[in-house]
Amino acid sequence: MQQRSEETRNRILEAANLLFSKNGYDATGVAEICEAAGVSKGAFYHHYPSKQAVFLADMENWLANVNQGFNLTRQETKDVPQALKQMAEMAGSIYQAADVHLSIFLEFWVQAYRDPVIWKAAISPYRHYQSYFAEMIREGIEQGSLRPVDPDHASRTLVSLSLGLLMQALFDPTGTDWQVETRDGIALILDGLIRRDI
Amino acid sequence: MQQRSEETRNRILEAANLLFSKNGYDATGVAEICEAAGVSKGAFYHHYPSKQAVFLADMENWLANVNQGFNLTRQETKDVPQALKQMAEMAGSIYQAADVHLSIFLEFWVQAYRDPVIWKAAISPYRHYQSYFAEMIREGIEQGSLRPVDPDHASRTLVSLSLGLLMQALFDPTGTDWQVETRDGIALILDGLIRRDI
Repeated sequence: MQQRSEETRNRILEAANLLFSKNGYDATGVAEICEAAGVSKGAFYHHYPSKQAVFLADMENWLANVNQGFNLTRQETKDVPQALKQMAEMAGSIYQAADVHLSIFLEFWVQAYRDPVIWKAAISPYRHYQSYFAEMIREGIEQGSLRPVDPDHASRTLVSLSLGLLMQALFDPTGTDWQVETRDGIALILDGLIRRDI
Repeated sequence: MQQRSEETRNRILEAANLLFSKNGYDATGVAEICEAAGVSKGAFYHHYPSKQAVFLADMENWLANVNQGFNLTRQETKDVPQALKQMAEMAGSIYQAADVHLSIFLEFWVQAYRDPVIWKAAISPYRHYQSYFAEMIREGIEQGSLRPVDPDHASRTLVSLSLGLLMQALFDPTGTDWQVETRDGIALILDGLIRRDI
């Protein structure tokens, strides 16, 4: 029963994703999502209170995947510099998954500008990654692999660089090899972070 | 006569800017822009072939201001590392000017996704800054102030970091002091770039 519930949720998500991408968030109604997903309105509202909730769940799913990959990498690498390098290598697959969602991303930002609930949801991943990488950098400093920089500022630099690369990778996919650029950009920042006096 | 022409263009730009911000690009018509600017349709079309042209001119104006500041800084500083530090200091005023245009920025990205002409206009500043800073870094390497890094990759890192910071400064203006973050982020990258063996 639980499995069937999850299947229904996924069907709704996939259908909504497709319709948002094709027609935009505003032009997509719950009725259309239900029709495309092959579910009743009752089933829809059993799983999601609103169209906005589906929209937010779609973004959360994508972020949950990224976070899972990051956590796994952190467990499997020997120190912080190596973990950061490994995470930079994951950029290619992150961009690819994001590419499918490009118009959703855009809609997300536009809706965030108009709607405080979506704004909060749009901002929270940046704040999350800000603490996540500050924590990692703090750990690296304590363990002696990183210089005693300000962890919050260094994290902000990593997060901002990644966001800027993601934006460009989405808008100008053929402009350059964004996976290589990400690897080299993170490496350049690591050059400024890694402790050399030991 | 030329001065009056410029005044008219500015009035049209300002009125359009205000209406785009308030009601969105799609919902704003040439007739409304003319009414708000106090110009006739004839005068409008004398200066701009279309609503899109006004939209693009608005973005170009903002970029021209930024570029003017950058060029002046480059002339007035003794070497490339100092020029880059000085440019980072300009971030505060750039963000402030961009803040007024936040919704225009957003509209710009959304329209770029839909319209190839606007896409080209949206991408070209990134490509411009990419060459601009690669050239500067190349100069710094030749003059011996920077390490022999790949200028294109280093430039991409600077541009991407700046774009990511701008995005966050616009969407989360009270999240942190973005001017300080920009200064520290650029300084961190410079730490990885500056030549130390001399």
